[in-house]
Amino acid sequence: MKQIYLDHAATTPLDKRVLKVMEPYFSENFGNASSLHSFGIKAREAVENAREGIAKAINAKPEEIIFTSGGTESDNIAVQEIAYTNKDKGNHIITTKIEHHAIENTCKFLEKDGFEITWLDVDKKGFIDLNELENAITDKTILVTIMHSNNEIGTIQPIAEIGKICKNRGIYFHTDAVQSVGKEKIDVEAMNIDLLSASGHKFYGPKGIGFLFIRQGTKVHPLMHGGGHERGLRSGTENVPGIVGMAKALELSEKEMKKESLREKKLAKKLVKGALKIENSWTNGPVIGEKRLSNNVNLGFDFVEGESMVLMLSDKGIAASTGSACSTKSLEPSHVLRAIGLPHVKCHGSLRLTLGKETSAKDIDYVLKVLPPIVKRLREISPLGKK
Amino acid sequence: MKQIYLDHAATTPLDKRVLKVMEPYFSENFGNASSLHSFGIKAREAVENAREGIAKAINAKPEEIIFTSGGTESDNIAVQEIAYTNKDKGNHIITTKIEHHAIENTCKFLEKDGFEITWLDVDKKGFIDLNELENAITDKTILVTIMHSNNEIGTIQPIAEIGKICKNRGIYFHTDAVQSVGKEKIDVEAMNIDLLSASGHKFYGPKGIGFLFIRQGTKVHPLMHGGGHERGLRSGTENVPGIVGMAKALELSEKEMKKESLREKKLAKKLVKGALKIENSWTNGPVIGEKRLSNNVNLGFDFVEGESMVLMLSDKGIAASTGSACSTKSLEPSHVLRAIGLPHVKCHGSLRLTLGKETSAKDIDYVLKVLPPIVKRLREISPLGKK
Repeated sequence: MKQIYLDHAATTPLDKRVLKVMEPYFSENFGNASSLHSFGIKAREAVENAREGIAKAINAKPEEIIFTSGGTESDNIAVQEIAYTNKDKGNHIITTKIEHHAIENTCKFLEKDGFEITWLDVDKKGFIDLNELENAITDKTILVTIMHSNNEIGTIQPIAEIGKICKNRGIYFHTDAVQSVGKEKIDVEAMNIDLLSASGHKFYGPKGIGFLFIRQGTKVHPLMHGGGHERGLRSGTENVPGIVGMAKALELSEKEMKKESLREKKLAKKLVKGALKIENSWTNGPVIGEKRLSNNVNLGFDFVEGESMVLMLSDKGIAASTGSACSTKSLEPSHVLRAIGLPHVKCHGSLRLTLGKETSAKDIDYVLKVLPPIVKRLREISPLGKK
Repeated sequence: MKQIYLDHAATTPLDKRVLKVMEPYFSENFGNASSLHSFGIKAREAVENAREGIAKAINAKPEEIIFTSGGTESDNIAVQEIAYTNKDKGNHIITTKIEHHAIENTCKFLEKDGFEITWLDVDKKGFIDLNELENAITDKTILVTIMHSNNEIGTIQPIAEIGKICKNRGIYFHTDAVQSVGKEKIDVEAMNIDLLSASGHKFYGPKGIGFLFIRQGTKVHPLMHGGGHERGLRSGTENVPGIVGMAKALELSEKEMKKESLREKKLAKKLVKGALKIENSWTNGPVIGEKRLSNNVNLGFDFVEGESMVLMLSDKGIAASTGSACSTKSLEPSHVLRAIGLPHVKCHGSLRLTLGKETSAKDIDYVLKVLPPIVKRLREISPLGKK
């Protein structure tokens, strides 16, 4: 059966060119990067080359990049450790109501441990209000953590403006850029970002590897203790193939970003235009072409359950999502859709389609052929109202 | 040039059969295991099959296994989270003076944070004294963490006896089994282990993946917060190829354990016998054949620096180690060798050779040919004494 993968926000296939550069590091140049012998030296060189490439892509210094196991770990190091390391300066953290669970739940954990969290509202398209941010800052604020782009509705926040505010007030600024790295140009200098999280498998790199940018001079302790790898900030034997693969994936994404972004935007527009022909439907998040991830489409349909749509689409060979796959199957409606003011009942009818490098116009045609009868069928059996 | 890898305690090459089972999960069945569609379901099935296999290998239940990024993370979750989750019951932790840095430094971190740590001594071969352990337990003891086998000198602790003591006293028992899993038969039931750490790349599996066994009913919170993966204990998108690879690697290691262990023991004996012909040399740790890892050889030579030996061996194509590669290049003498009572000056002259599946008798012959002139040469230029 035809298989059309439209869930690139959940994860992406490993680019074959990436696997190729990883291969020598599995069974051949397999050394521990901390070993002194030739196997170790080769591994160390590979790790440091990868670090340089990644640093360059976001305009950081190599020594400002540490390798982690992925976005969740990067987020946890950033938020937990900025909090605990700087709590002598204050106990106040500012974030938003639409963060990824890795930030949301880390902040909730800190809230229970005596930190005060301000959860900024967002508007109907998912944007924060910069004045609200400014007003929320107190002399106890130690960290602002706001995602670069949203994983459900694609909203890209005014990161440079947020960075400027934080810099002026002398507050650390962390951004969860897991959905943006490889898709949007990021410059940690120009944007005044102090900490940035990224995950390899979101940009056609391997799973189980990520990185955290930490600006030089940032006061932060490790989350995990051990052999003192990664300048003492992240112990554990380096995942050499993963690191090499992530760097290659980022290099390719950066090179192909402009062209691919335009291509995906065009397909996303086509998809939205076609889907909105279904009655009682709408889109969530900014209009395509605004500050929104090019590959993200989030649709809403009255009187249907997103989960049922996903299952019926899957039967037709289409991989889609409702809300975020980063959260294990939960019956709660998306906190992001609630935050943009969608009524509870409408939150359930959301469908996220996230495009990727291998998505073709033909795939979109197929989705637009298959989707309307699915919505119709579900509405016929729906207990939610209109048949 | 001939390349002989004798640093399997630092890391192992990925078994080609393991890479083969990983391959379909990179670019084909690449789904996020939390997704509801067919790509997600395939990934979830692979993860759960792997969990079952791993659980079976150590006689645990599948739901008692959580996947982590490696040994260091497993150790940190176990020790940090048992400590913080159970601090209402007490603040006392018992460990040894020869733990891996992931345990040692986590305990030191907790010590600074108000926990009381008892650092058990070991004898000249690296064994703890069970009576000392019993006597160290107080009504404030919440955790005993003692490694299954030592990464430097190969000593295998009396784990079942330790487990029994902990069970009788109602104290959690964690063991860092990173060096043992895949080499020594482990039964968490028979040994009364409550938590056990393991790392894939130590038994011919991939880097960047590990697991933690946590006995059902154990009170423990997560170290990282997020989407609630791994029953809420370890958030973050599952590293599916890594998990699948680790399970296969363990399956193969278990199957080949008996035979391979005997084979390596024989080679290790040959190596030790030959090396001890060099004057002013000795072995560290238990005698081969005692409770010692079959593949571990730790030699000592007077009047030479271990690091210089490693570099000169590397020039001859032999990968060896002095102390542990898990610690980034440090000038401190090994805390393990100090703990077994070796004088400071003798700690510097240690050479660790750890054998593996691909090590042959010919390799050992080559080492025994190359090593004596290296020791001789280094002694000639040594400032440490005898020429």
